[in-house]
Amino acid sequence: MNEVAAYVHGYHPRENERLQDQAGTLADLLHAGTHYAAGRRVLEAGCGVGAQTVTLAVRSPGAQFTAVDVSAASLAQAEAAVMAAGLSNVQFRHADIFALLFAPQSFDDVFVCFVLEHLARPAEALAALRALLKPGGTMTVIEGDHGSAYFHPESPAARAAIACQVELQRRAGGDAMIGRMVYPLMVQAGLQDVSVSPCLVYVDGSRPALIEGFTRRTFTAMVAGVRDAAIAAGLSDADAFDLGIRDLHRTAAADGVFCYTFFKGTGKKRRG
Amino acid sequence: MNEVAAYVHGYHPRENERLQDQAGTLADLLHAGTHYAAGRRVLEAGCGVGAQTVTLAVRSPGAQFTAVDVSAASLAQAEAAVMAAGLSNVQFRHADIFALLFAPQSFDDVFVCFVLEHLARPAEALAALRALLKPGGTMTVIEGDHGSAYFHPESPAARAAIACQVELQRRAGGDAMIGRMVYPLMVQAGLQDVSVSPCLVYVDGSRPALIEGFTRRTFTAMVAGVRDAAIAAGLSDADAFDLGIRDLHRTAAADGVFCYTFFKGTGKKRRG
Repeated sequence: MNEVAAYVHGYHPRENERLQDQAGTLADLLHAGTHYAAGRRVLEAGCGVGAQTVTLAVRSPGAQFTAVDVSAASLAQAEAAVMAAGLSNVQFRHADIFALLFAPQSFDDVFVCFVLEHLARPAEALAALRALLKPGGTMTVIEGDHGSAYFHPESPAARAAIACQVELQRRAGGDAMIGRMVYPLMVQAGLQDVSVSPCLVYVDGSRPALIEGFTRRTFTAMVAGVRDAAIAAGLSDADAFDLGIRDLHRTAAADGVFCYTFFKGTGKKRRG
Repeated sequence: MNEVAAYVHGYHPRENERLQDQAGTLADLLHAGTHYAAGRRVLEAGCGVGAQTVTLAVRSPGAQFTAVDVSAASLAQAEAAVMAAGLSNVQFRHADIFALLFAPQSFDDVFVCFVLEHLARPAEALAALRALLKPGGTMTVIEGDHGSAYFHPESPAARAAIACQVELQRRAGGDAMIGRMVYPLMVQAGLQDVSVSPCLVYVDGSRPALIEGFTRRTFTAMVAGVRDAAIAAGLSDADAFDLGIRDLHRTAAADGVFCYTFFKGTGKKRRG
């Protein structure tokens, strides 16, 4: 499978900016509780443009990170972002998540964020990553779930625009509603002591930073990003799609509300 | 409006047992942060069978509660529950929430839980309750939102069964998806410093108490409770409805996941 071609969000500069915005707004939420001690060797599988990589490396300055991605172009951007942040504890490798050339038990920890949603065989990917863990090592998995998105005012047009993104991702072999499956997937992959924490992003008129940083610049921007692909695929026409985006922006008004949930799972590889 | 006849959940003994189960499982979640100091006069508007009343009175033993409900039969059960718990800090009054016979500014605090969802004019109800608050008094509002329910495995039949409950509640003048609107409703009712906390109930195979207490005995039991009404209203046939209930129980398996969110809002009446 050519995973580069199948990546639903695309590789445009504006999209990369969105991913960096998203990481900034969500860093505290998604990375809370994730810290790797000095000397740990940590694999970030599917680092993309480095949106999480910088946060990981800043929060755990003594750990040694290896960040891999299937896209050489993304990897170059991730490396630039890490350099711009003045970090020296990350090395980069160009590789497919299903064909990683590391020896078994090479890593103390594995971190996977917003990656399984794009894979046709997520449980197999986790099992392959588990093989790279030392006994007792930890795995952290973070995914969103578009089925967790709801808002006020309710809007069929907004739901239809979101459904375009879900369908495009499905056609590319992924699953935009995978967040709720993090627990069973990690258990299926043979991890022990699996524990999942949902992170609900709740945005109302009293939270202007989240209105701008999440409702508008993260979620609505992400859906808007598939406009041309959705129209080209015959999933929507321009007017209907634009109405949906307008209604998503409407939820960012003072009397609007927006909810979305990320799921963060942690588990361990059995010792011995 | 005859609100007794319109109450979607009905008044059967099994339903009352479900409401008590629900309150037990959810008490810590819903009542966290809610405590009334000794001497406060607190109105619980719409106490029903007393599912929240007992928790309120136990957690704030020095406060004086007045619990009102439109149903005399429910009120009698609430009174029995409070007596059975050995509590003496609650008095009961039979009244419609839109025609409360208290003087303005009679209470230090108002508590409203799972009530607005059944009212055709929720903002007006909050405004009427606000009038009963002393300046500086607090209002606490708790509501669920059936649009926040999602699960694994996904099931169109389960969604259809849930939609029956939502539609019956709508026909009765209510809104089963009102949770997300707690913030704008409280602001619209003229409350100040409104702050809403979502309480996400996340249930997976590692949480057996919630599987039993929430997925099965609270949510699925609630949807199952409208079976006859949904069939009588022509919203479903028996086989389709029962398939939906079966699929909701399926989400309670070891590899299943269930999510639901309650919204808890607090606000104040402006001083002077």
